[in-house]
Amino acid sequence: MSLEKGGFTLPGESGYEELTLRLADKWGADVIRDSDGTELSEDIIHAGYGIYSTVCVIRDHNEWAKENADKLQQTFLSTPPVVAVTCSGLKIRLLESFFEEQFRINDKEGAMKYWQVWDRTANRLLSPEDWVYDRSEKTVTITAPACWHKYTVSFLAYRIWEEISMYNHTTNNWDKEHLMQIDPRYPEVREYLREWMIKWCEEHPDTTVVRFTSLFYNFVWIWGSDPACRNLFTDWGSYDFTVSERALDEFREKYGYSMTAEDFVNQGKLHVTHMPADAHKKDWMDFINDFVIEFGRELVDIVHSYGKKAYVFYDDSWVGLEPYNGKFSRFGFDGLIKCVFSGFEARLCAGVDVPVHELRLHPYLFPVGLGGAPTFMEGGDPTGEAKKFWNNIRRALLRSPVDRIGLGGYLHLTEGFPDFNDYIEQVSDEFRMLRRLHEAGEPYTIGTRVGVLHSWGRLRSWTLSGHFHETDRHDLIHINEALSGLPVRVSFLSFEDVKAGALADVDVVINAGYAGSAWSGGEAWKDDGLVERLTQWVYEGGTFLGVGEPSAVEGFDSFFRMAHVLGVDEDTGARICHGRWSFTAADPEGIVPAGACLDSKPNRFLTDGSTRVLMEQDGDPTLCVRDFGKGRGIYLSSFRVNAPNTRLLYQLIRYAGGEGVSGPYMTDNLYTECAFYPGSNTLAVINNSGEEQSTAVRMREGEKTFSLRPFETLFVKI
Amino acid sequence: MSLEKGGFTLPGESGYEELTLRLADKWGADVIRDSDGTELSEDIIHAGYGIYSTVCVIRDHNEWAKENADKLQQTFLSTPPVVAVTCSGLKIRLLESFFEEQFRINDKEGAMKYWQVWDRTANRLLSPEDWVYDRSEKTVTITAPACWHKYTVSFLAYRIWEEISMYNHTTNNWDKEHLMQIDPRYPEVREYLREWMIKWCEEHPDTTVVRFTSLFYNFVWIWGSDPACRNLFTDWGSYDFTVSERALDEFREKYGYSMTAEDFVNQGKLHVTHMPADAHKKDWMDFINDFVIEFGRELVDIVHSYGKKAYVFYDDSWVGLEPYNGKFSRFGFDGLIKCVFSGFEARLCAGVDVPVHELRLHPYLFPVGLGGAPTFMEGGDPTGEAKKFWNNIRRALLRSPVDRIGLGGYLHLTEGFPDFNDYIEQVSDEFRMLRRLHEAGEPYTIGTRVGVLHSWGRLRSWTLSGHFHETDRHDLIHINEALSGLPVRVSFLSFEDVKAGALADVDVVINAGYAGSAWSGGEAWKDDGLVERLTQWVYEGGTFLGVGEPSAVEGFDSFFRMAHVLGVDEDTGARICHGRWSFTAADPEGIVPAGACLDSKPNRFLTDGSTRVLMEQDGDPTLCVRDFGKGRGIYLSSFRVNAPNTRLLYQLIRYAGGEGVSGPYMTDNLYTECAFYPGSNTLAVINNSGEEQSTAVRMREGEKTFSLRPFETLFVKI
Repeated sequence: MSLEKGGFTLPGESGYEELTLRLADKWGADVIRDSDGTELSEDIIHAGYGIYSTVCVIRDHNEWAKENADKLQQTFLSTPPVVAVTCSGLKIRLLESFFEEQFRINDKEGAMKYWQVWDRTANRLLSPEDWVYDRSEKTVTITAPACWHKYTVSFLAYRIWEEISMYNHTTNNWDKEHLMQIDPRYPEVREYLREWMIKWCEEHPDTTVVRFTSLFYNFVWIWGSDPACRNLFTDWGSYDFTVSERALDEFREKYGYSMTAEDFVNQGKLHVTHMPADAHKKDWMDFINDFVIEFGRELVDIVHSYGKKAYVFYDDSWVGLEPYNGKFSRFGFDGLIKCVFSGFEARLCAGVDVPVHELRLHPYLFPVGLGGAPTFMEGGDPTGEAKKFWNNIRRALLRSPVDRIGLGGYLHLTEGFPDFNDYIEQVSDEFRMLRRLHEAGEPYTIGTRVGVLHSWGRLRSWTLSGHFHETDRHDLIHINEALSGLPVRVSFLSFEDVKAGALADVDVVINAGYAGSAWSGGEAWKDDGLVERLTQWVYEGGTFLGVGEPSAVEGFDSFFRMAHVLGVDEDTGARICHGRWSFTAADPEGIVPAGACLDSKPNRFLTDGSTRVLMEQDGDPTLCVRDFGKGRGIYLSSFRVNAPNTRLLYQLIRYAGGEGVSGPYMTDNLYTECAFYPGSNTLAVINNSGEEQSTAVRMREGEKTFSLRPFETLFVKI
Repeated sequence: MSLEKGGFTLPGESGYEELTLRLADKWGADVIRDSDGTELSEDIIHAGYGIYSTVCVIRDHNEWAKENADKLQQTFLSTPPVVAVTCSGLKIRLLESFFEEQFRINDKEGAMKYWQVWDRTANRLLSPEDWVYDRSEKTVTITAPACWHKYTVSFLAYRIWEEISMYNHTTNNWDKEHLMQIDPRYPEVREYLREWMIKWCEEHPDTTVVRFTSLFYNFVWIWGSDPACRNLFTDWGSYDFTVSERALDEFREKYGYSMTAEDFVNQGKLHVTHMPADAHKKDWMDFINDFVIEFGRELVDIVHSYGKKAYVFYDDSWVGLEPYNGKFSRFGFDGLIKCVFSGFEARLCAGVDVPVHELRLHPYLFPVGLGGAPTFMEGGDPTGEAKKFWNNIRRALLRSPVDRIGLGGYLHLTEGFPDFNDYIEQVSDEFRMLRRLHEAGEPYTIGTRVGVLHSWGRLRSWTLSGHFHETDRHDLIHINEALSGLPVRVSFLSFEDVKAGALADVDVVINAGYAGSAWSGGEAWKDDGLVERLTQWVYEGGTFLGVGEPSAVEGFDSFFRMAHVLGVDEDTGARICHGRWSFTAADPEGIVPAGACLDSKPNRFLTDGSTRVLMEQDGDPTLCVRDFGKGRGIYLSSFRVNAPNTRLLYQLIRYAGGEGVSGPYMTDNLYTECAFYPGSNTLAVINNSGEEQSTAVRMREGEKTFSLRPFETLFVKI
């Protein structure tokens, strides 16, 4: 099938001009980019391709940063608790447990007013008169501690090594100057960056697209002093790295109250994205987001004024970008680029309201991958990795299109891997074919609409906090990944949305997470109004599909507040003397495909005899269905994404929507999937497995059977 | 070795006189008893043996009970929640989910004032004006329910089938009249029972010991209507079956406040013994206990006035007996009989302040055992069972003596099992030998003293709530069972005891249980004073040994409040983005014996680098030690009793006490144990396994090696 070229961004590399242009042709590139650590030569720049240039706004200014060390970015740190084993003079070394190359104490007067010393045994904040800071020793001494209580110090620290380069530096054993990051919260920094942006545009006349990598504030990454616990805290979704005494002062002025160190430190737990945010955290996120938009728009305007487009990379220093909070269009970006390992990330990118959506595929052209395993070096299998990732992403692209794909890194590393280059050629063609099919009209979806319900709602559509491998302990990321390739319309709802009437637009609500988490909902479930609305909606025909500890909160007669619908609850200990309903697992309707398997979780029990158990493991129910009025509750003890479980989820959604377990435009082999594009009357059939597969698809025109090679994509005109 | 006979209670059986007397001789019986369902003939009664006669105070009075149906015992019941799917007239059938042969509604005016109707969605008690009871329909109708809320009705019900006979009836397919139980709370019942007791004594001149089986109130056993969930609630330690409108009225008078239905119902969860008791429950237990002692003493006095002794069976209707609350001696009992499967039950019996301690061994002489499996019938292996139980009990008797053992049931069932009769002869001799050794002085123990710390403290010494197999999901019962045979002094402490200074008398504190449970402690750990005392005590040399979720409570910087000592904490979700200390498990001091294995539990992490991991499973720490001052924290993720783990616990205790991992009077083969009796200079060596074992024991006189047959007991003069 002959296809136009284009929609592909190639990482060029100075010194490898021939390779660059050869692969640009092979892969159908229309744009050549530089990468962190590579440059483009004049020969490449003038070869007739569009030119992406990466800029990292906040970190490539070491000279200026060194002269303005009080304008580096900061964070709150809290020392680990120390027990007062005598009742006089407890001394705490502030930086002892932190990576000294990452942090420097900010002990300016304006900063120290935000420091806090806590008695963590009594949950008591100490008065500033009760402790003394020694600037030279970098210690805090609590003058008269309560004996046997433990204490922590929360303080502001400058971050003196930009974390992404710190990571790359360490991973690739670089021997370079440590890059620092400056904070645009300071007017001097903004003034400096405006000038820098103008100068940059002036100096890069050939650049057609400025690719921001990314904006101002990195996700949180706190390292420790001990190599046995180097990583103290990592959260892709948290805003801790946006703090400074100046931001705190400005916040107080705008919001009328003061954020304290404890609003960030939270007893040393910090506020992870996986837990529900409190009102202060939400205010702070809004505050930062407004600021990032405001100054980000200034830089975008400068870029536009030079006739260039501005794309933003949705990773690394993405904090405050928030493409799903309804304000994103204010930035004026022309495109958004997302690095992807998984289907949900492709959907995350595809769903953003921006003209151009681009995927940065994996593997990155680096000797080693994110986990430190070899990729483009001896022992690596980059083609295998590319297949695995494309296999994840392709099924999402069946459902929702993006405009471009691309790679990053050192192009020369591909030289020893010709099969990789061949495979990328094939991927590029498949991507362009899918894009064209979407252009002719949306693919077929079933009528049943799914709403994923959690604390963040739309703001954290598709993603939880980072990549799949960073969040794979959460059932919801597995659900999202399974959903990303299903012919089902999916939306993401917050509890506020439900109360505002969002249930009218969905047929199945999925609530998946452990008790107390943002994904299950925690305290939100104390709201009777929420329970009432969902109960009524189910009774009138909706399906509440809970996974793990859905709707769980302490304080009521049931731990799962939707237990009366689910027919399943969890015993947190108080019901250990209660009898359990006996059951025999049965699936008379054939909802469970062969090979589907859900791990049981302890202490789940049936609330009454009307709950039907479809699957069990070692005597514990793992999949239950219970009718409630015209609707039903469905309970899954857990969910891990794989081909049989993905099919199970799809069949449960179909069943919930009254569409039958199977139907048109559905493969009968669960290792394959398909999408039908009515606009072009084309069927795409994909083999998600590494083995040959044969599958039948029922269509209006009758049933057809297809044979597919491992991982093959078939496009068939019907 | 020739031994005196005696100390054995034989269940005689009318019609089997020859068998009774032959086995009495073989087993060295000095006393013959009847059993539930058996009688003693004149020939047996006058054969020169002491005669135990069982009386069940509250249930053998059906004729009187029928005429006094308002004086039967009661309980609160709460209907399962029902959702109001319309906003008018929600009707709830009170008995629908309960076993109709067990309950009858008590809808007398004085009782109905204690009924409650709850909106369980809003946690709101309804006013009595908001609901209507229909006596003929046995329904409650909520006039104007909040739509989509769920409701429950709490009501008083008479129990019309005494639960132990209900169980025996059902298990043995009896076709007899259902026995009912009368409530001595009513003066008329007490008057009736006094007369009955006098009459009974008059009519049983040959009885030497009246064996109360047991007192007035059974442990809780609520059955359901659906055979798929027959057992709704069973708790050996709960007081729900002591309630009545009269008791509630008298309580209010005595304590100045009213107990409500909700004090018992607790959102439908009831108050299981495994959870900490609130102040109301404790008051109620005291109230009942005082009453049971007062009237129990009256009956004992009657028995004594006829020159008979009064023993009490510590099971079944034992509620209010409480042999460990310091008031037990007020009953005036001459003996206490405990049915035993396990070592901890032998210690439970042995530790009571009463002249005579007797164990009722298992198996009971019944065709089937407690679980319904065959015992004295085809397919049964009563000798194997007897060996297994004696093996559990024997090691406890090495440490703490009892005065008597015995059996119960139908003696004729042993006829087909001569090896059983031989084995009981051997057991009887071993028991008498152990009793004699103890009479000559206490056995050797190590210096390290263990205190088991939980909410109940001394009141629930050794037991949790019932037999081992009923509580085997709890780590603590495994700990108690292991401790029951170790040469270590053990006490049981409550949190109040610790605050009153009890730590002065122990060297190792064990806290073992899941978060929120009575065994871990739940809210008790919110007390800073408790944490301070334990922290100081460890710092000065004590060892805090935590199992499972020790000292766990929400609200603080660590979930385990003793994390600063243990060096281990649990992530309940808020720390899911935090890094973890890497570690390599190592046991340089040889504390962990071969074969020891602790199951890992999710989300446990090291709090800092000073925690030493001795055992791990799949990368999770399962045994950790951390020095703290002169003392230390020891953390076990879980504990299941078996020979290697029992040895592990012993070695940890020795290590904690500075006594070294091994020492004198300790076998070098963990499938064997020994006890040294200095008073008689005798060593008892036991083989706890079904295989031959050889073991060396180091003594003052040098090391000696012993060979033991399966389950053998050796007594060796040193």
